[in-house]
Amino acid sequence: MHSAGRSWLLLTGFILFYIIYLLFGALVFSSVERPQEDQLRTEMKALKEEFLNQSCVNAASLEHFLVKVLTANKYGVSVLKNTSMPSNWDLASSMFFANTLVTTVGYGHTTPLSDTGKAFSIIYALIGVPFTMLVLTACVQRLMYPLVLAPVGLLQRSGMEPRPATVVHFMLLLILVVLCFFLAPAAVFSTLEVSWSLLDGLYFCFISLCTIGLGDFVPGTQPGQKYRPLYQVSVMIYLFVGLMMMYLLLRTFHKMADLHGLTTFLQLPRCEDDLDEDREPIVEDHH
Amino acid sequence: MHSAGRSWLLLTGFILFYIIYLLFGALVFSSVERPQEDQLRTEMKALKEEFLNQSCVNAASLEHFLVKVLTANKYGVSVLKNTSMPSNWDLASSMFFANTLVTTVGYGHTTPLSDTGKAFSIIYALIGVPFTMLVLTACVQRLMYPLVLAPVGLLQRSGMEPRPATVVHFMLLLILVVLCFFLAPAAVFSTLEVSWSLLDGLYFCFISLCTIGLGDFVPGTQPGQKYRPLYQVSVMIYLFVGLMMMYLLLRTFHKMADLHGLTTFLQLPRCEDDLDEDREPIVEDHH
Repeated sequence: MHSAGRSWLLLTGFILFYIIYLLFGALVFSSVERPQEDQLRTEMKALKEEFLNQSCVNAASLEHFLVKVLTANKYGVSVLKNTSMPSNWDLASSMFFANTLVTTVGYGHTTPLSDTGKAFSIIYALIGVPFTMLVLTACVQRLMYPLVLAPVGLLQRSGMEPRPATVVHFMLLLILVVLCFFLAPAAVFSTLEVSWSLLDGLYFCFISLCTIGLGDFVPGTQPGQKYRPLYQVSVMIYLFVGLMMMYLLLRTFHKMADLHGLTTFLQLPRCEDDLDEDREPIVEDHH
Repeated sequence: MHSAGRSWLLLTGFILFYIIYLLFGALVFSSVERPQEDQLRTEMKALKEEFLNQSCVNAASLEHFLVKVLTANKYGVSVLKNTSMPSNWDLASSMFFANTLVTTVGYGHTTPLSDTGKAFSIIYALIGVPFTMLVLTACVQRLMYPLVLAPVGLLQRSGMEPRPATVVHFMLLLILVVLCFFLAPAAVFSTLEVSWSLLDGLYFCFISLCTIGLGDFVPGTQPGQKYRPLYQVSVMIYLFVGLMMMYLLLRTFHKMADLHGLTTFLQLPRCEDDLDEDREPIVEDHH
């Protein structure tokens, strides 16, 4: 159907554009963040000098002290007085960690300290990640009829052409997901977490449901959090249902792209059934 | 073929087992990590007391100083003297950050400080994540013939039955991937990074290629790293090719599971073509 040449040209184009996209991102991040970082650096230097001037501490012992403080902080152990917060490894927090591991979000706000913990993380994720994908796929499959096939059918029966019907349905689903899984949770988080703005909440929801999980904002980590275990379990449920909806959205988009010939144009596998070259089974029949 | 009841029973079983798996993980992490954490907590408390005893600093001013130090550290700005390292936001580091964003690895060792940076991250990932998936899919599709279809065909022609042939091929591919993308890089990282053991290297490779990206180990972040930009670009290439191989492995496993009737048994979509109930197109034909 398509020549092999065009196929390779498309792939090369993709990769080139990918590199350009990364470079573009790098330039923007560099220009936006660097001044902020430089300012913070200067502030930290001044702060340290001021601290040394005001006290009789010698520079070497302060340095030694700070190295240890920062290392402990990396493992989620804070030196601060007001952190009367419970362990990072109580049952609810450990379950939250296990959940971020198997959903591949991986905030990294707490990380295993021991070699046993690291080895167990590997084995646990090795089984847990595919299993979570399986559970999510199974759930999404049950949701396809009530949330995708039925509404599209309804739109069609109300006199819409198939193609516009899928586009209208996708837009409606997108608005629903943005409202229920991004804007509403962002508002809730910015209320519950003292230091979070609405943008911070939105940033957290987005970074989490894309499974990027940078971990600069993690709910329930502020000291003195009320009902912390309950809060953490709620966030876990939010993450699971949210990921399910993201996956449903992706699958709906894929089906829509099939219908509009986008997947065929980009020579990618179809959602409903694969491309001709790919439909070829893994084994040869003539044996 | 299957009753709806069995299908729901299977789903409920999946979800129940998922919760049990999370609880089990939580119990193990909690029992393994908590003693380590408690020890570190005690050490930090003693260290702080010792520091206060040895010097004439008052507790309140030290507390105030430490709050600022730890906040700056959260954004990747260290107060330590020997961190003569370049910015976290130079071009190579920014590109590394952009790459961890679009591949959804998201180490979070550097995170945007400004609101502009956060907003840009959302928009950048919104376009970048699907695009990266597209590039990876396109690459994997080109690799399916030389790495999957051709070797399986070869095994069959050498007199093997189709089903054992796919299993033998999958095992060989798995060993190849583990050797080339886990063990070898782990050895390289544990050599290049001063403080990393072989387990740390393996843990980094695994946590990265599953896109969990906890960020407790990130290559090229030690101060005074030689050829840092080159090193970071190499890690980026490793991540991209590694993710491609993980995706290839997943796709091969999915095709093998189809052949062995595993997907049908678990009532999940097939790789080659979807299940009957799912093959139903998104739109109704009778319109």
